[in-house]
Amino acid sequence: MKREETFNFAAGPSTMPRSVLEKAASELLNYRGTGMSVMEMSHRSAAFQEIFDRAKASLKELLRVPDSHEILLLQGGATLQFAAVPMNLLAGGEADYAVTGRFSGRAAEEAKKYGSVHFAADTSSTGHDRIPKQSELILSPGAKYFYYCANNTIYGTEWHYDPETACPLVCDMSSDILTRPVDFSRFALVYAGAQKNMAPAGLTVVIVDKSLVGRELPETPELMSYKAMVQSDSMLNTPPCWCIYMLSLMLDWVRETGGVEAMEKRKMQRAALLYDVLDDSRLFRPHARREDRSFMNVTFSTGSKALDAAFVEGAEERGLLCVKGHKSAGGMRASLYNAMPLEGAEKLADYMREFERKHV
Amino acid sequence: MKREETFNFAAGPSTMPRSVLEKAASELLNYRGTGMSVMEMSHRSAAFQEIFDRAKASLKELLRVPDSHEILLLQGGATLQFAAVPMNLLAGGEADYAVTGRFSGRAAEEAKKYGSVHFAADTSSTGHDRIPKQSELILSPGAKYFYYCANNTIYGTEWHYDPETACPLVCDMSSDILTRPVDFSRFALVYAGAQKNMAPAGLTVVIVDKSLVGRELPETPELMSYKAMVQSDSMLNTPPCWCIYMLSLMLDWVRETGGVEAMEKRKMQRAALLYDVLDDSRLFRPHARREDRSFMNVTFSTGSKALDAAFVEGAEERGLLCVKGHKSAGGMRASLYNAMPLEGAEKLADYMREFERKHV
Repeated sequence: MKREETFNFAAGPSTMPRSVLEKAASELLNYRGTGMSVMEMSHRSAAFQEIFDRAKASLKELLRVPDSHEILLLQGGATLQFAAVPMNLLAGGEADYAVTGRFSGRAAEEAKKYGSVHFAADTSSTGHDRIPKQSELILSPGAKYFYYCANNTIYGTEWHYDPETACPLVCDMSSDILTRPVDFSRFALVYAGAQKNMAPAGLTVVIVDKSLVGRELPETPELMSYKAMVQSDSMLNTPPCWCIYMLSLMLDWVRETGGVEAMEKRKMQRAALLYDVLDDSRLFRPHARREDRSFMNVTFSTGSKALDAAFVEGAEERGLLCVKGHKSAGGMRASLYNAMPLEGAEKLADYMREFERKHV
Repeated sequence: MKREETFNFAAGPSTMPRSVLEKAASELLNYRGTGMSVMEMSHRSAAFQEIFDRAKASLKELLRVPDSHEILLLQGGATLQFAAVPMNLLAGGEADYAVTGRFSGRAAEEAKKYGSVHFAADTSSTGHDRIPKQSELILSPGAKYFYYCANNTIYGTEWHYDPETACPLVCDMSSDILTRPVDFSRFALVYAGAQKNMAPAGLTVVIVDKSLVGRELPETPELMSYKAMVQSDSMLNTPPCWCIYMLSLMLDWVRETGGVEAMEKRKMQRAALLYDVLDDSRLFRPHARREDRSFMNVTFSTGSKALDAAFVEGAEERGLLCVKGHKSAGGMRASLYNAMPLEGAEKLADYMREFERKHV
């Protein structure tokens, strides 16, 4: 299949802008006259340091990260942060966890190894089809932090507010970072696996309040100590250089495309195209409740496994790739990250209408 | 500088074969008709699974990994393994550590968090210019494992034997994996950061005896549990997909070039070119003792900081990149990993002779 004929709706790793990939391919063998690929460069070289600094500076600028917070570029994905967060910030105390999907649930389980976990909310009884309201949150008075996952990729729900709590917030923004403005002053820590909106898999961005580092448990691996990583500017060891380079190209693209505000506008347009079809449909059923719908991952099904499979197959034939839902939720899922062109969402919406005409 | 005019002697990340980079560039936008870049593929897709399986199968074949051992493709580099090894294999007991350089020293320090460390050897008193002989090793009777780093990139020394011990071996082979045959039956675990002989930075290969997994400390992060990673075939979370793809291309190249035996022959030829110059030199002094010299990293100096700097500058002008030594050792270092052409070592040897004629 030609690249021009496809749109990739994978939940992560996920689609990247064509211009970014073209740039990467064009300088893959010889990065800007250095005589080397970025993949071959010493992480201590001036050329790589410039790439690294540019990526960090772009994140700081685009996300408006205040000077109180440090940006770390790490390895291990969200899963390693499930442990790193409590190892560094819980230190045997208690924290509030809101479980609204698979990943926040795993984060809470992992945190139990390092302190007490209080469940501030748990939406599993209705198949994680919703986000708790502020008034429903059961907050623990002594909590060190309140943990939540801003967008649930599997179930297609999203927090449309930042919880009001006495303690600072910790948030997994793996699937919605760079898609909306964030007031970092309310967050002890935000982290995001890069493979949805930022870079290829293998890079994790952590944005941490510097005043909170240095309280890690004694058994914390050195590489997981935020203090050690702040002090070494994320270069305690060799960082994932290629991913950081791709991040810098992606951030150039975000800036050229209008920044985070433009990304937010585009995401709403894309999601509206699909939710409009779902709201009018007599065939497709959305998984998430209307008020808690995700702008990033649109989840739906026909109610029939055979029809769902036919839908996915027909989508593939039309170059609408990876719309099969996660096995925990079934049905379909269309992931609409920053790099998804509006045209991709339009084509998928057209196909949904066409499929419905044929099958209702 | 044109790529054809350069040879990159960086210690890691380090040079890659031109044909491998050309292949990567050619399929970067559209991997073999899938309509996607490897960087955009779901790690659960059939296309990526095939890349992943091929990389593992190639490693198993080229390194002759026995069925008793599992190959894991992880994140976090050697530094995360410094903690993962004792968290999983020490479990509060004692282990022997041979400290022959910076990285084995850091591994020993990290292990102290999780059990008792017995120093079986320590070569710091002579600036890590040598490897202890078997007869010098002080082995502890109850040791769970014997830990060493096979090749010391900073100091340019290399173990030319596998220690004889009552307990199994654990070895950091970050800088010499795939450069010699290894009898894995003697090893509890071997690990290697990929960024020297295998792939871009951001991938760690672990080869572990399956009978030893499942004894991790309760506070082990899930992502660092060898048991969890064996059970999930390294996909507990999203793996570093691009690095794994590059690994598969690199392993294709190793196979086409004659396999590990051919790599071993070539490394000896390359190193001999430089050591011959050093042995005849009245200007350059090798750092490592003759019998413990590394085939991978040739370390030397003139004894004068000004002359060393002039040598490095002249090398850059000739396209002989990154020959400056590590700050701990000073002087120069030429890293000669698998992808360094013989011609690179020849050009560097010629330049060394020319420099000596001018400065003696």
